[in-house]
Amino acid sequence: MSDHDISPEITARFAAIVGERYALTAPDDIAPFVHERRGFFVGRTPLVLKPGSVEEVSRIMRLATETRTPIVPQSGNTGLVGGQIPDQSGREVVLSLVRLDRIREVDVLSNTITAEAGVILQNLHDAADGADRLFPLSLASKGSCRIGGNLSSNAGGTDVLAYGNARELCLGVEVVMPNGEIFDDLRKLKKDNTGYDLKNLFVGAEGTLGIITAAVLKLVPKPKGREVAWVGLESPAAALRLFGRALDKAGSGLTAFELMRAITLDFVLRHIPGSVAPLAGSYPWYVLMEISSGRSAEDARTLIEDILGEAFEAGIVGDAAIAESLAQAKAFWSLREDMSDAQKPEGGSIKHDISVPVASIPAFIEQAMAAVERTVPGARPVCFGHMGDGNLHFNVSQPVGASREAYMARYHDMNAAVHAVVRALSGSISAEHGIGQLKRDELLETAPPVAIDLMRRVKKAFDPLGIMNPGKVI
Amino acid sequence: MSDHDISPEITARFAAIVGERYALTAPDDIAPFVHERRGFFVGRTPLVLKPGSVEEVSRIMRLATETRTPIVPQSGNTGLVGGQIPDQSGREVVLSLVRLDRIREVDVLSNTITAEAGVILQNLHDAADGADRLFPLSLASKGSCRIGGNLSSNAGGTDVLAYGNARELCLGVEVVMPNGEIFDDLRKLKKDNTGYDLKNLFVGAEGTLGIITAAVLKLVPKPKGREVAWVGLESPAAALRLFGRALDKAGSGLTAFELMRAITLDFVLRHIPGSVAPLAGSYPWYVLMEISSGRSAEDARTLIEDILGEAFEAGIVGDAAIAESLAQAKAFWSLREDMSDAQKPEGGSIKHDISVPVASIPAFIEQAMAAVERTVPGARPVCFGHMGDGNLHFNVSQPVGASREAYMARYHDMNAAVHAVVRALSGSISAEHGIGQLKRDELLETAPPVAIDLMRRVKKAFDPLGIMNPGKVI
Repeated sequence: MSDHDISPEITARFAAIVGERYALTAPDDIAPFVHERRGFFVGRTPLVLKPGSVEEVSRIMRLATETRTPIVPQSGNTGLVGGQIPDQSGREVVLSLVRLDRIREVDVLSNTITAEAGVILQNLHDAADGADRLFPLSLASKGSCRIGGNLSSNAGGTDVLAYGNARELCLGVEVVMPNGEIFDDLRKLKKDNTGYDLKNLFVGAEGTLGIITAAVLKLVPKPKGREVAWVGLESPAAALRLFGRALDKAGSGLTAFELMRAITLDFVLRHIPGSVAPLAGSYPWYVLMEISSGRSAEDARTLIEDILGEAFEAGIVGDAAIAESLAQAKAFWSLREDMSDAQKPEGGSIKHDISVPVASIPAFIEQAMAAVERTVPGARPVCFGHMGDGNLHFNVSQPVGASREAYMARYHDMNAAVHAVVRALSGSISAEHGIGQLKRDELLETAPPVAIDLMRRVKKAFDPLGIMNPGKVI
Repeated sequence: MSDHDISPEITARFAAIVGERYALTAPDDIAPFVHERRGFFVGRTPLVLKPGSVEEVSRIMRLATETRTPIVPQSGNTGLVGGQIPDQSGREVVLSLVRLDRIREVDVLSNTITAEAGVILQNLHDAADGADRLFPLSLASKGSCRIGGNLSSNAGGTDVLAYGNARELCLGVEVVMPNGEIFDDLRKLKKDNTGYDLKNLFVGAEGTLGIITAAVLKLVPKPKGREVAWVGLESPAAALRLFGRALDKAGSGLTAFELMRAITLDFVLRHIPGSVAPLAGSYPWYVLMEISSGRSAEDARTLIEDILGEAFEAGIVGDAAIAESLAQAKAFWSLREDMSDAQKPEGGSIKHDISVPVASIPAFIEQAMAAVERTVPGARPVCFGHMGDGNLHFNVSQPVGASREAYMARYHDMNAAVHAVVRALSGSISAEHGIGQLKRDELLETAPPVAIDLMRRVKKAFDPLGIMNPGKVI
């Protein structure tokens, strides 16, 4: 037999580690672990293991090493690039971290929370809130994504502008290596220069170097005041000017700056029941801007009013509405968060998760929209995202009335056209979603050979047998 | 001949790359590159190379690989752990980056500055200031340290609290690998999830994995107002309570929070001419607190007054003086920055650069002071540092009237006693100075074997011949 078949004997040995109850072999039990919600990736596996402790994860990896069994770690299964889905061989075992869901400690004075990989992001938010703190990593999938996956994909989201991405919010990690050794680096230190930065190798590695089983995460003081404004503008250039002024005045009090093309709001108003346009008039571009204050609600209000007032006088802003209640603020945010769903009824959507230097955002949008029109005339750029981070979700909906199949067949061409603009502007083709299976080939084709070579050396050094989430990233 | 001798032929080939003028062989020319200013480390080398371009650095490393010649990179030679000093063998070549001193670009809209490794930190501050921006990395040695060394040692300093250390201020790097290949990752992106985080391996590696030749660094808006207060308190516990309140109210507007034991101020007043005590009374502990505002000078003033007023009413603060002028603010900061020099006249000083979780600072100080007294009765803890980062420079001056030699002979015992407390509190024995030669043995003795093993795998993967700053870090 090949060294990759999973024999009944080996299956039984894996099952014995976690117990029969947590070793899934029935197709119906396995199904939820081999499909991801957008349906882009479907894998096959004969076995899903749900260990209940770090020690069990370690024993699984020791056995995987002994038997050369490829392991695919998975936490919330919300990833968008297929990093958490096994291949079609039926030879890969899925290791689910959902049972490692303990919050081990909240340290209010040190502003840290120590959580296991299977903790759902929303539960981290609640635990922080209970300690009068904020855990600022926030994504649309926060109700189902889990921190292990957030760290392995270095998740971004809407609050990166002020608080950083998952990497910057992580102080220490606990990792089970492919050989089963446990790397315990669960430290709460803001400063530690004792050797190489191993933590940041595991964060963002999508489970290809080891399995993050727990992490120490930063907490921040809960803002006393938070104000949200919906702003109408003429162009991305105007949005960039507004961003510069807001950042200058508010510093890290500027906690969100989201740019949206008019069509994205139109889609939401058309397809999401109960959606209401925040402004009377309509504008080509909109910005959702959030200002937070550690001092008071009044302070946040004064600051956002000053910023918008001066921008209005400078002719940067066409119109703006500041949310008058928490409910309205939530409604503004919903418009932004519903944008992914609102594209579905409009037919096929070809997606891009890109970043460029912030100053290049207007140039990127202009050039990318032209590239789209050249590639598929009539295709509709649905452009929105985290402008303050230089990160846009530059999705492209099919032309009205076109054939979905014919349009989606152009996926690769459209990616190539848009990513060419990204590269010309020294940007990234994966700003926050990662590489996984989806972008692996393109990474290998387009990244500098020296970078690929160094990544391969790291992979080989940490996972010499190649059993750790093979076929992902590199 | 051994493969490490530097023959006249090889010396000539190295010299030909940079030109005779920039290949130093005369002992007087070489001396400044093999001594560091505290005199702890003195090395030997027959050759110092001063390349004038990245291409020359690359050719040097190709030749070093061909001839198995160990290379010691050096920029400002201000490091405190000997990472930039060659060994005693006389077989290591020093590669000085002082001629790579170009600021390649300032991008005001993207808030980035791209600089070569040899740029002096102060020059980066000036370039940022000229663009109405702030480059927030700041150390006492800013007039002579260079950014390449700052990044290779992941420098910290006084502004880490709000802006992060060198690692967090670096968006991209350009690195010459041991084999001469150039890894060009000079990107301005806040978000980029395309593969493993290689950048953070080179940052903090002290030149043992490759040579950082340039970097893209973050700029931040220049504060409109900045207020500095000198605060007297009864205990580190009180300082921790003040820190919690200040952070809660000011958020990232809290740009410095430095703790100092009374004896450190006494030393400065005694030995630094022109020093003046900021407060009428004396207290066991002092805090230097800085508040910055992106809005206005008045705003910063109001905020620092509110924080101190409330802390005073809560009985946390004994007395406080807010600087009434830029000159006085500078004077407060000088008291803090002169603390290293002020220790010298007090005899032998055994130094520690430690970090612990912020909440553990009071416990650390209490336990470490007891450990000092047990180790050398009468020795005087000179404790000061970046409390907001959990980082203290816990230096210990000799007992009054003791023999300097006898006291300094206890260096290792004192380190062992203090570092035992650090480990018991899950801290770090090198918060911001690095490992270099000074702490290498202790790192190897005390770090988890898994961590050491992983670091060695990284070293071997990137520098298989072991020619890149050998004997440092790992």
